[in-house]
Amino acid sequence: MKTGEKETVSLLITGAWVLTQNPERKIFSPGAVAVRGAEIAAVGPPDELSERYAPAQTLDYPQGLIIPGLINAHTHAAMSLFRGLADDLPLEEWLNSHIFPAERHLNGDFVYWGTKLAVAEMLLSGATTFCDMYLWAGQVAQAAAETGIRAVVGEVLYDFPSPNYGPPSAGLQYSEELCRTWRDHPLVNVAIQPHAVYTCSPDLLQQCGELAARFDTRLIIHLSETHREVADCEAKYGATPVGHLHKLGLLSSRLLADHGVVLSEADMNLLAASGAGVAHCPESNMKLASGIAPVVDLLAKGVPVGLGTDGCASNNNLDLLQEMDTAAKLQKVHRLDPTALPATQALDLATINGARVLGLEKKVGSLAPGMQADLVVIDLDRPHLTPIYDPYSHLVYAAGGADVQTVLVHGRVVVRDRRILTFDLEETLARARELARSLQK
Amino acid sequence: MKTGEKETVSLLITGAWVLTQNPERKIFSPGAVAVRGAEIAAVGPPDELSERYAPAQTLDYPQGLIIPGLINAHTHAAMSLFRGLADDLPLEEWLNSHIFPAERHLNGDFVYWGTKLAVAEMLLSGATTFCDMYLWAGQVAQAAAETGIRAVVGEVLYDFPSPNYGPPSAGLQYSEELCRTWRDHPLVNVAIQPHAVYTCSPDLLQQCGELAARFDTRLIIHLSETHREVADCEAKYGATPVGHLHKLGLLSSRLLADHGVVLSEADMNLLAASGAGVAHCPESNMKLASGIAPVVDLLAKGVPVGLGTDGCASNNNLDLLQEMDTAAKLQKVHRLDPTALPATQALDLATINGARVLGLEKKVGSLAPGMQADLVVIDLDRPHLTPIYDPYSHLVYAAGGADVQTVLVHGRVVVRDRRILTFDLEETLARARELARSLQK
Repeated sequence: MKTGEKETVSLLITGAWVLTQNPERKIFSPGAVAVRGAEIAAVGPPDELSERYAPAQTLDYPQGLIIPGLINAHTHAAMSLFRGLADDLPLEEWLNSHIFPAERHLNGDFVYWGTKLAVAEMLLSGATTFCDMYLWAGQVAQAAAETGIRAVVGEVLYDFPSPNYGPPSAGLQYSEELCRTWRDHPLVNVAIQPHAVYTCSPDLLQQCGELAARFDTRLIIHLSETHREVADCEAKYGATPVGHLHKLGLLSSRLLADHGVVLSEADMNLLAASGAGVAHCPESNMKLASGIAPVVDLLAKGVPVGLGTDGCASNNNLDLLQEMDTAAKLQKVHRLDPTALPATQALDLATINGARVLGLEKKVGSLAPGMQADLVVIDLDRPHLTPIYDPYSHLVYAAGGADVQTVLVHGRVVVRDRRILTFDLEETLARARELARSLQK
Repeated sequence: MKTGEKETVSLLITGAWVLTQNPERKIFSPGAVAVRGAEIAAVGPPDELSERYAPAQTLDYPQGLIIPGLINAHTHAAMSLFRGLADDLPLEEWLNSHIFPAERHLNGDFVYWGTKLAVAEMLLSGATTFCDMYLWAGQVAQAAAETGIRAVVGEVLYDFPSPNYGPPSAGLQYSEELCRTWRDHPLVNVAIQPHAVYTCSPDLLQQCGELAARFDTRLIIHLSETHREVADCEAKYGATPVGHLHKLGLLSSRLLADHGVVLSEADMNLLAASGAGVAHCPESNMKLASGIAPVVDLLAKGVPVGLGTDGCASNNNLDLLQEMDTAAKLQKVHRLDPTALPATQALDLATINGARVLGLEKKVGSLAPGMQADLVVIDLDRPHLTPIYDPYSHLVYAAGGADVQTVLVHGRVVVRDRRILTFDLEETLARARELARSLQK
C-alpha cells in the first residue's frame, strides 16, 4: 500500500532514544519505529521514517526512551494473589505452612484473576512476554490472550495428584491438549513444564521430554535452585540435577532450566554443550536465601541466560527493571568486581537472551524489521532520570517499572500513558480483593 | 484552642493503615494522624481523632498506607548530576577518570541545583530527611531549607585543598561557620564530616572530633568501606579504620560510620561499646563491589544501623523503598538464611534507626504525639500492592518510590498526589539539563 510516495503503516512511534538490541546494538537518538500490523516495518531516525511512511496513528514521546518489550523468563503469575501472605520464614515452613495450604484453595477462577492481576503489573512495568509455570495453565493462556500480552504457558507436572487435572497420568494429556488448543495463537505458546527433579520421577521427566519434542516446544523445569535439591538428587540418583537430566537424555537447546543457582563447573559445561538455557531469578534467590547463580560464568561459557522474577510470593513484585538492577549488582558484589554484568548485559538478559531461552528470538527481544512489534516507552521526564548521559545506565540502575509510559504487544497499544487499554483494571483489582478475603477465611 | 469540645489542629490525615514505628510498633487500620503546626498531636483510629480534633485541613486516603518519613542516612545529593556518567568500571578508573574530573567543574551553583534535583527525587520517593556529605555544604543547606526537606549537612574535609573553601585549614573554619549559621534552623542540622581515614590525617580527624563535640553534633566519616581501605590503614597505622579511630579517641555515640562493610569482630565490638552508628548503603556496596556489610551481626551487638543510598553515581537512585528491599534480600542470601533482616527490621533501618544514627530520634522516625510531623502516604491502589495481607511486606518487598502519593515534612505538605508543592520542579529539571550539557563539553 502506497500513499503517494509513502507506504501506509499502522503506527509510527518516536522517542528521544531507541535502543534496538539488534546484533550491532544500534541506538537512534532521536529514533522512531514504524509498525505494520503486528510487525515492525522499520527502525531509524524519525525524519527518515516520516519520509518513507504514512502512518494511520502516530505516538510522539519527545522524552521517551523506546526499548524492546521486556521478557520475564520465569514466573508463577497467579501467585500475585499470595503476595505478602508469608515472608521471612524458613523455606519448609513457608511452603508447608503457608503456600501449599493457600494453594489447596486454588481453582481455575483464582488462577484466571490472579494471572490478570499479574498481567496488569507486568504490562505497567514493561514486560510484554512472560513465561509461566502453574496449575490451570489453560486459564493462564486465556488470561494472556484476553489481556493481549505474549506468554509461554505450561501446566506444572509432578508425581502426585493435581487439583486441576487429577491423577499424574492426566497431566501429560492436559499438556498435550493445551498444545493443540493454542497451537496457532499469535500470542500464546505452550511449553511442557515438569516441576523439578525432586517432584518428578525419571519416567515422568522422560515422557515430558518426548511430549516437548513431539510438539517442538520448550521443556521447562526448576533446576538446581537450592543446595538441598542438589544434595538430595546426588543422594537419590548419584548425580547433580543437571547430571541427572543429562543421563536421562533431556539436556538440549529445548531445555530451559529455571534458577540454576547451585551449579558445578561440570554442570555448566553440560548445559553449555547442550545449548540449554537458564532463567535467572536473582531477587527470588536472594529472598529465599537459595544462593547466587553463577551468571557471569554461564554467559562466558555461552549458556544463554534470561531473567525472571519468579512468583510474587518470593520476590515480591514482577518489575523487570528492578530485577535487572539487582542482577547486575548481585554479580558485582558476589565476584567483588564492579565490571561484572554491566548494564548492557543486564538489558540483554531481559530482552534478547530472554527471547532466546524461550525459543522466541526470531519474534521478539529486539527492534528490527520483521520482528513482532513488542516495545516499551520509558518516560525520561523524571527527576531520577534527569539529566541523561547513558540510556543503558538509566534503564538498569535508575529506572523502575513505574517509569513505563506506553507499551505495545504484537503491534497493539496495550498501555498508553500508564492506562491499560485492553481490559478493565478496576474489575481485576476488585476481584483480587474478593479472592484474598475468601482465602483469609 | 478549642472549637466547642474540639481542639483545633492544622491537619487531619487518614489512611487505610498507619504504621507508627513507635516502641510497640502499633498499627492502626484504618488510622489517622492529627498535626498541630510542625508536630504530631495524636495518632489513632480516624473516628477517635475526628471526635477530638477540628482540623483546618483534611487529607483522606482510603487506600493509603501512612508511614513515618523515610530517612536517608548517607548520600551525596548533588551527585544526581553525575548519574550515569560512568558505570561498571574498576573503582580507581571510575574515580580517577570520571568522577574526580567531573568534580573539578564543581561550583556552588552546581551543588545547589544538583541538590534540588536530588531533593525532588527524594521527596517523590518518600524520604523526608537526608544526611549529606559534599562540597559547598552551605548550598546544600540552602537547597534543603528552600525545598522544605529535613537535612543533616556537612562539608567534606580532607588533607588537600578544596575547590570550595581552599586550603585544608579553612575547612574547619567553614564547618564552624556552617554550624553557627544554621544552628537554629528547624530543618537543617550541621555535622562535621571528615572524608575518610585515607584522606584525613590523624590530626585533622582529631580537630574534627573536637569541633563536633564543641557544637554537640555528629561526626560523620566513610569508614571501612572497602578491603583496600582496611589493608592500607593497617599498613599505615597498624590498626583497622575502626581501631584507628578508637586509638584517636573518636569512637562515641556522636560518630556515624558510613558503609561499615569490612568489619572484624573486634571492630564491631568497639563500635557497639562506643554507641557509634553505621549508615548501611547496600546498593552502592554492591555496585562498587565493595562487599556485604555485616548488618545482622551489627544489630545483634546493639549497633544502630541506618540506611543510605549513597550518591547517584554509585547506586544510581535515591529510592529508599527499593533500598530496604535490597538490604533485606542481601542479608538473606549472604547468610543463606531467609529469616535474616525481616521486613519489619528493614523498615526500622530507614525510620527509627536512621533517626537514631543522626541524633534525631526525639524528632523523627516514628509517628507519635510530640514528634515532628514528617510522614509519607503510600498509594495501595496499584496492581502490585493489591491485595494486601501485611503492610510491612508490601512496603519492603513490593512497593517502590513511585508509589509515594503525599509527603509531609515538619507539618507542611511538600508533596501532594505526586506534585511537589514547595518549589518549581520544571525549573530544576531544566537547570539540571543545562548543567549536564556544560559538564559534557
